[in-house]
Amino acid sequence: MKALVLFSGGVDSTTCLAIAVDKYGKDNVLALSISYGQKHNKETEAAEKIAAYYGVKLKKLDLAKIFEDSNCSLLSSSSDDIPKESYADQLKKTDGKPVSTYVPFRNGLFLSCAASMAISNGCTEIYYGIHGDDSAGNAYPDCSVEFNNAINSAIYIGSGNMLKVNAPFVNMKKADIVATGLKLKVPYEMTWSCYEGNEKPCGVCGTCRDRIAAFKANGITED
Amino acid sequence: MKALVLFSGGVDSTTCLAIAVDKYGKDNVLALSISYGQKHNKETEAAEKIAAYYGVKLKKLDLAKIFEDSNCSLLSSSSDDIPKESYADQLKKTDGKPVSTYVPFRNGLFLSCAASMAISNGCTEIYYGIHGDDSAGNAYPDCSVEFNNAINSAIYIGSGNMLKVNAPFVNMKKADIVATGLKLKVPYEMTWSCYEGNEKPCGVCGTCRDRIAAFKANGITED
Repeated sequence: MKALVLFSGGVDSTTCLAIAVDKYGKDNVLALSISYGQKHNKETEAAEKIAAYYGVKLKKLDLAKIFEDSNCSLLSSSSDDIPKESYADQLKKTDGKPVSTYVPFRNGLFLSCAASMAISNGCTEIYYGIHGDDSAGNAYPDCSVEFNNAINSAIYIGSGNMLKVNAPFVNMKKADIVATGLKLKVPYEMTWSCYEGNEKPCGVCGTCRDRIAAFKANGITED
Repeated sequence: MKALVLFSGGVDSTTCLAIAVDKYGKDNVLALSISYGQKHNKETEAAEKIAAYYGVKLKKLDLAKIFEDSNCSLLSSSSDDIPKESYADQLKKTDGKPVSTYVPFRNGLFLSCAASMAISNGCTEIYYGIHGDDSAGNAYPDCSVEFNNAINSAIYIGSGNMLKVNAPFVNMKKADIVATGLKLKVPYEMTWSCYEGNEKPCGVCGTCRDRIAAFKANGITED
């Protein structure tokens, strides 16, 4: 194995997977899908189907216990509703703090799991799909350029200089990610973004709004 | 809760626990004990007894699945023997690479779990017991000052500036840790260090050798 891809089954990480497969070939890419106590499992179902589509090996982890005391609104441990507003509107109410869908240190935790598993499997690179839109206004502080630089240093040093983090979209907007993926023929119709777990995406949660806008910027409307 | 202590039941983390309890009081300290597929559970048994001794709440996690592909000699997933030499002698054979008891990115992973759980429980500080002896010669690269600085940055930034890492021994030798703990009346007879899981410590693995030397430097011989 050469690369481990943190893989949720959403737009960003599926585009990462496509980039890694394009570079290294499917037999050298390991995908890692992590459950963490979400209110639904639509993402992990999407991850399984997309991993099969690309023919890459998929590892799954369940870290729900780590978040059992969290009141993050994405999690089944919380009774809070998932906000139905844009991130910009949510941030007007949080006084500079992360939004209610911030899962405590999720990216740091997932990257650390990825690092341990990558080293164990001989990978020298971890891909993950953070991007600029998600870090705007401190909505998700673990999606910022500064966070990425710090965790990359920690993983490089802590692995004995064996492993690097590759965040190809850290300076991109989501619309640019979709443009990148369309060139690689990513099967976006297989991906899942919505925070709610209904049959169809709700269209009004923060991540639905971002997805719709990113596709629209590329001339695409999903039904 | 104010502080979360990464707590293995060994000498270093038990001294950390004593410092945190001394500073914040037992009701404001959460101890976290993590299993990761070790060949024995003597450490976690010690952790339970010591947490009860101090009267602090103990959370337990099992992360063995993350290391199922690792060939680290500490783990039940590996058939390699645990070396019976000092770290210095082991490093002569590894060509600058980590020793065979290096668990891939263990401290980064454990600190990331601690960060997610600390935020969920309202803690603003994580204590952990890394020290200079363990990072010497790159034996454990995730015990170095450089690693600690990088992961502290990642956790501070990724938590939205809510959480800091406190590594009180990062510039100390193990003998100094024991000296610190003796002043705090740490019940070292309850701690477990040996990598083997026999009734009595083996006395010849790397961590037994370090423990014996650290106690001897403080005028103590254990039977």
